[in-house]
Amino acid sequence: MKQIINCAAYSQGCRKADVELNHVHEVLKEQDQFVWIALHEPTEEMLVRVQEEFGLHDLAVEDAHMAHQRPKVELYGDSLFVVLRTAWMNEEKHIEFGETHFFVGDNFIVTVRHNSLVSYADVRMRCESTPHLLKKGQGFALYAVMDFIVDQYNPVVHSMEMELESIEDRVFKEKPSRETTEQIYQLKRELLEVKRAVSPLVDICNRLMRFEIKCISEETRPYFRDVYDNVVRINEMVDNTRELLNTALEANFSLISISQNDTSKKFAGWAAIIAVPTMIAGFYGMNFKFMPELQWHYGYYIVIGVTIGLCMLLYYFFRRSGWL
Amino acid sequence: MKQIINCAAYSQGCRKADVELNHVHEVLKEQDQFVWIALHEPTEEMLVRVQEEFGLHDLAVEDAHMAHQRPKVELYGDSLFVVLRTAWMNEEKHIEFGETHFFVGDNFIVTVRHNSLVSYADVRMRCESTPHLLKKGQGFALYAVMDFIVDQYNPVVHSMEMELESIEDRVFKEKPSRETTEQIYQLKRELLEVKRAVSPLVDICNRLMRFEIKCISEETRPYFRDVYDNVVRINEMVDNTRELLNTALEANFSLISISQNDTSKKFAGWAAIIAVPTMIAGFYGMNFKFMPELQWHYGYYIVIGVTIGLCMLLYYFFRRSGWL
Amino acid sequence: MKQIINCAAYSQGCRKADVELNHVHEVLKEQDQFVWIALHEPTEEMLVRVQEEFGLHDLAVEDAHMAHQRPKVELYGDSLFVVLRTAWMNEEKHIEFGETHFFVGDNFIVTVRHNSLVSYADVRMRCESTPHLLKKGQGFALYAVMDFIVDQYNPVVHSMEMELESIEDRVFKEKPSRETTEQIYQLKRELLEVKRAVSPLVDICNRLMRFEIKCISEETRPYFRDVYDNVVRINEMVDNTRELLNTALEANFSLISISQNDTSKKFAGWAAIIAVPTMIAGFYGMNFKFMPELQWHYGYYIVIGVTIGLCMLLYYFFRRSGWL
Amino acid sequence: MKQIINCAAYSQGCRKADVELNHVHEVLKEQDQFVWIALHEPTEEMLVRVQEEFGLHDLAVEDAHMAHQRPKVELYGDSLFVVLRTAWMNEEKHIEFGETHFFVGDNFIVTVRHNSLVSYADVRMRCESTPHLLKKGQGFALYAVMDFIVDQYNPVVHSMEMELESIEDRVFKEKPSRETTEQIYQLKRELLEVKRAVSPLVDICNRLMRFEIKCISEETRPYFRDVYDNVVRINEMVDNTRELLNTALEANFSLISISQNDTSKKFAGWAAIIAVPTMIAGFYGMNFKFMPELQWHYGYYIVIGVTIGLCMLLYYFFRRSGWL
Amino acid sequence: MKQIINCAAYSQGCRKADVELNHVHEVLKEQDQFVWIALHEPTEEMLVRVQEEFGLHDLAVEDAHMAHQRPKVELYGDSLFVVLRTAWMNEEKHIEFGETHFFVGDNFIVTVRHNSLVSYADVRMRCESTPHLLKKGQGFALYAVMDFIVDQYNPVVHSMEMELESIEDRVFKEKPSRETTEQIYQLKRELLEVKRAVSPLVDICNRLMRFEIKCISEETRPYFRDVYDNVVRINEMVDNTRELLNTALEANFSLISISQNDTSKKFAGWAAIIAVPTMIAGFYGMNFKFMPELQWHYGYYIVIGVTIGLCMLLYYFFRRSGWL
Repeated sequence: MKQIINCAAYSQGCRKADVELNHVHEVLKEQDQFVWIALHEPTEEMLVRVQEEFGLHDLAVEDAHMAHQRPKVELYGDSLFVVLRTAWMNEEKHIEFGETHFFVGDNFIVTVRHNSLVSYADVRMRCESTPHLLKKGQGFALYAVMDFIVDQYNPVVHSMEMELESIEDRVFKEKPSRETTEQIYQLKRELLEVKRAVSPLVDICNRLMRFEIKCISEETRPYFRDVYDNVVRINEMVDNTRELLNTALEANFSLISISQNDTSKKFAGWAAIIAVPTMIAGFYGMNFKFMPELQWHYGYYIVIGVTIGLCMLLYYFFRRSGWL
Repeated sequence: MKQIINCAAYSQGCRKADVELNHVHEVLKEQDQFVWIALHEPTEEMLVRVQEEFGLHDLAVEDAHMAHQRPKVELYGDSLFVVLRTAWMNEEKHIEFGETHFFVGDNFIVTVRHNSLVSYADVRMRCESTPHLLKKGQGFALYAVMDFIVDQYNPVVHSMEMELESIEDRVFKEKPSRETTEQIYQLKRELLEVKRAVSPLVDICNRLMRFEIKCISEETRPYFRDVYDNVVRINEMVDNTRELLNTALEANFSLISISQNDTSKKFAGWAAIIAVPTMIAGFYGMNFKFMPELQWHYGYYIVIGVTIGLCMLLYYFFRRSGWL
Repeated sequence: MKQIINCAAYSQGCRKADVELNHVHEVLKEQDQFVWIALHEPTEEMLVRVQEEFGLHDLAVEDAHMAHQRPKVELYGDSLFVVLRTAWMNEEKHIEFGETHFFVGDNFIVTVRHNSLVSYADVRMRCESTPHLLKKGQGFALYAVMDFIVDQYNPVVHSMEMELESIEDRVFKEKPSRETTEQIYQLKRELLEVKRAVSPLVDICNRLMRFEIKCISEETRPYFRDVYDNVVRINEMVDNTRELLNTALEANFSLISISQNDTSKKFAGWAAIIAVPTMIAGFYGMNFKFMPELQWHYGYYIVIGVTIGLCMLLYYFFRRSGWL
Repeated sequence: MKQIINCAAYSQGCRKADVELNHVHEVLKEQDQFVWIALHEPTEEMLVRVQEEFGLHDLAVEDAHMAHQRPKVELYGDSLFVVLRTAWMNEEKHIEFGETHFFVGDNFIVTVRHNSLVSYADVRMRCESTPHLLKKGQGFALYAVMDFIVDQYNPVVHSMEMELESIEDRVFKEKPSRETTEQIYQLKRELLEVKRAVSPLVDICNRLMRFEIKCISEETRPYFRDVYDNVVRINEMVDNTRELLNTALEANFSLISISQNDTSKKFAGWAAIIAVPTMIAGFYGMNFKFMPELQWHYGYYIVIGVTIGLCMLLYYFFRRSGWL
Repeated sequence: MKQIINCAAYSQGCRKADVELNHVHEVLKEQDQFVWIALHEPTEEMLVRVQEEFGLHDLAVEDAHMAHQRPKVELYGDSLFVVLRTAWMNEEKHIEFGETHFFVGDNFIVTVRHNSLVSYADVRMRCESTPHLLKKGQGFALYAVMDFIVDQYNPVVHSMEMELESIEDRVFKEKPSRETTEQIYQLKRELLEVKRAVSPLVDICNRLMRFEIKCISEETRPYFRDVYDNVVRINEMVDNTRELLNTALEANFSLISISQNDTSKKFAGWAAIIAVPTMIAGFYGMNFKFMPELQWHYGYYIVIGVTIGLCMLLYYFFRRSGWL
């Protein structure tokens, strides 16, 4: 698979030329333009070459090679290193996570994509179609990709809200089951993972809005407020879902108990209805010599009648008091 | 439906004249007056026209078009962009939410109402009837509408408190039921939604009280403290209701268990009362050759008597110890 | 009922003269003295008159008329507006709340009492008996009344702690009951209300200790630390009681389950003791032609003996393993 | 009981002379020395005399007389007033609390001990044995006693951890019981009390480390870091114990339910084993004219055999599925 | 066992010479080099000797002798005292903790290892193999060992995550058992201990990144950001595991209840299936003179057939409604 997806120089918001990695350092010398290069799961050698061309910091490159970082933003001298986590629903409706790293310098931006399905070629194209915005510089490119990444969380969170609704339906409309409980647990697990990926973004956006460094021009800073709003909203939805989920777990539990109580009552009711005729029959099964009823011609029928009557009375009584 | 509900120029707190949207930019040039325009679910073109007349910021207008924002306040240069959520109870006693956006500039205020029943014409009229207040400028108009919006939350919160009381009654006075549990869950859900709409207002009012910008005159700032107090009170009531609701859920759960215990005891008691005569009858149903009691003339009656006595004794005993 | 309870001028900590409301503005012109006026549920006209005499701010007076404010302290120019909630236990051992408002200015203090039983005449008398303290000015009068109000919370909190102890006794020593659960819920409700009335006081005292305004002389500020300590202590007691109450609710719940388990075991034990003889009797009630035991002369007695023996064995066994 | 335990003047870290309370003010005039006086439950007159000799602040002395303060540190001009709570286990393994107050001034330290068993004479002796440390002044004496007081919490916390372990043993190894639940509740209560006594100490130590006042020499400040570390550790242990205790309560509850489930299964199993032979016996007790088995010579034995076989089968089956 | 593991002087990142403890003070006089000495459970005398050679502060040495400190960093004049807790899994899969103390001064670093298996000789070797990094000074050595210590937490946390997964499996796939509950409790206990060891590290790294002292050269400070990231990640994993564990405990509890409900239903179902034939048999065991069915030739067979039919019907009915 190609490691360099795209590498171009931009001037005044327009794509000037595709650039070979080897010639990047020459292009970087020219003024009023910046290079935007997109890597996909680069090998170590590739990263070393990129580091040399752009003059990146050792620690940042080390981080970029090792995936599984926490989302963060770091300043190395004049350049910026940003780590974000990407997320999407796979076909079995499970969340998968990837990682994207950004190196942003005076006149360049490098994006490094690890384990994610969607390429950022579309974002680049959209940027190129609005040169009046892209000419704000590499800071705008950073914003565009970040905005895209954060937007990807929307369907993920939406799908978790759907999942919560399906859980609610099962809790309140179906019988309590082991599956529902496990479903609640799995959703909780996913919420925690998404939370872990999203919550550091609040702080990251906050800092990008305030960083006073050259590589993010002043007029692009308000744009990060947009990403910030989005991130706060997603965060809130995750927290909300989590709190509702906890309540659903407790409600589920209450309903299990109610259902158990219903079982007990139903059982008790029917047990009584069966026990009474058994007792009566037992009495007329006694072997006493003198039991006048036994001699009666219609004794048997009377007993059967009385028994049925008693059972119906009990049934009516239990029904009325909600036991059956 | 009309998109422009109202558009007038005010000078010294008095309505000077209705203004055509096309002539707004002319009016804005004159000193010591401001324009107050109210929009209702404007189309994109309308928003673009308004933007041009008032010179609003791109990002703010984009937000104003897209509803479903979090409540927030933002500064774009010298002008202010405020997003609030409105709430009301519909006829089925469910909460519905709308949104209102404000653009406040040096000498204008634009209100954009999305999906809400009540128009702000009343607020405008009340403002016009107190020119000594309205002459404080567009900041006062902003305060008046915000105050009105926050006041709308009072009946909503009150109705949720009523709902909590009805839940308490059902929990403590009626039998535990699936419906109560679901009702608790639904109230929790609504509380979370209201909380999400109200809690950002604390911060918004705080910032409006402190913002040192021209479009909100210094003498109107203390008025936002009024809104602030109101918001904090509503927030507190929501939190209180939430905590009580959680306790109600737990109390409900305890009561379910107690009720289950009662069921068990009642069942156990009656089971014993029926089991004892069954056992006795079983004994006298044995076919041993030599069972002297069987020959007794009153054996049968004695057994019946003893059995009834035993049952009454058991009944009395269970009654006393609270099992029946 | 009289609206003006008391209205006097103080100089050097001594009551100089009672003042008519109409002449207050004259007295206020004199130096080195202050006016202390106490109102009780004043009508709107009365408030307007007071406002005119003392030159109070519109918003503060509006608040003072409308009760049901949150406790707060606000600065209007050079004067202070303070809202406190008062609390006391009524005869049915329920908490009732009132409200007291203070206007403190350069040389006056106005107290407005809404819905509370105890008048502040005693506080005033105590102040008058220590002129060396009262000469610190109207700030000291504010402190004296606030201290009195906060002290009133002590018996309320104490009574809630007593209530908690009575709940503990019922939970741990009596049988689980619906009443205990409801009692826990009601106490929780009251705790939340007291918390809501007390917790803003921490912030209020803090601010009064630090406000650098003329109407509270520097030497009275440390006195508010006293109130602060008191408020923090009451707050802590409320929190403690709340946490213990939550644990009591959970403990109650555990005990309900244990008690249910005991019921089940007791029932199971007795069911077994009755089922065994029933089974044996059933066997000897079979109508097989050849059942040698039935012919034995002492068969019947042997069976009865064996059965009683078995039952005693079971009883002993269940007893030992704690089921009965 | 003596109220003045000890009263001596120290110079260069060495005890110079015992001082009469009446002559303290003379000693205080001399330079380079300080007076250390220890009081035990002083009467009001005694406190007044001490106040006069040392020139203490009214409010502080008032606090010192009234016990039941929250731990706190307060500055009155140049002198310091510190309140600490002391704790120890009594013989019935319950925690008891006392209080110690400190007045620290330019050249004196007064300790006032309320309701506590251990005197600080040992601390004083230890201080006197290290004159190179004690010469740092009365600040060091304050540190020494505070360190001693905080150290006293260690055995208390340790004993609560032991109590938790005993609870764990009872929860996981013994049968669920009312006693365990009550024990958990009582430990929780004690933890809250200790927490209340210890947690304000974090703030107190922090402030003592930073206070830039004359009565605590700069070189003694780092020593309070020692106390701080200790306090933070104790605080953490209390929090840990509390969290574990909560989990223990929940685990206890799960185990009660499991145990209840076991009871139900055991009961169900044995009920089935007894019900089957009863049913079979019932069948052969029917009085039909034509029941061939009844005529079989070995019918009785066959039935008994079959029944016993069935019961054994059931027993084996229940055993295997864990019901018995 | 040797107390001094290693003691060497480094210059320009290269090991210059091994140094005798007695000659350290001479070496310390030379410029541009630093001494790195590693101790393992030193005796008190040894510590005193080290203290004299390096001129360490009394309080720090006292701490170093007493193990069981909280992780912390402290400044004593120009030198630094750091306490960390080390952790590893022993062979029975339990976590064990050790402690490592660091004294870092102008030109030396002393590491004191208490109760830990792994020596830091490997870290030293790795440092020596990268002289361009080690020449940054003793600050880098501190970083290297801290990084190593924090890395040791990774397998510990990983093993706890594995434990959680095994608990999940047992909760959701196996039957509820006492063992699972105890396992949950034990994991919770371990999580709290790890949390206690790790969470202070966030603050420690933060301070090391910012401390502006000579003994940590400016270029080594960013390295502590690395440790910081690692610590925050571990912290997050512990928190996540804890929250999931709590949910697992609740889920476990729900499942116990569901399982109890299943037991009740199963029991009720079978009880009914056995009770019906018993009742029927009881009826035909009655001794009435006129019971026509008893005379029927096939009466017995009909009854047996009807009974079996009824039982099958019940079985089918219970099966369908999920009771069996």
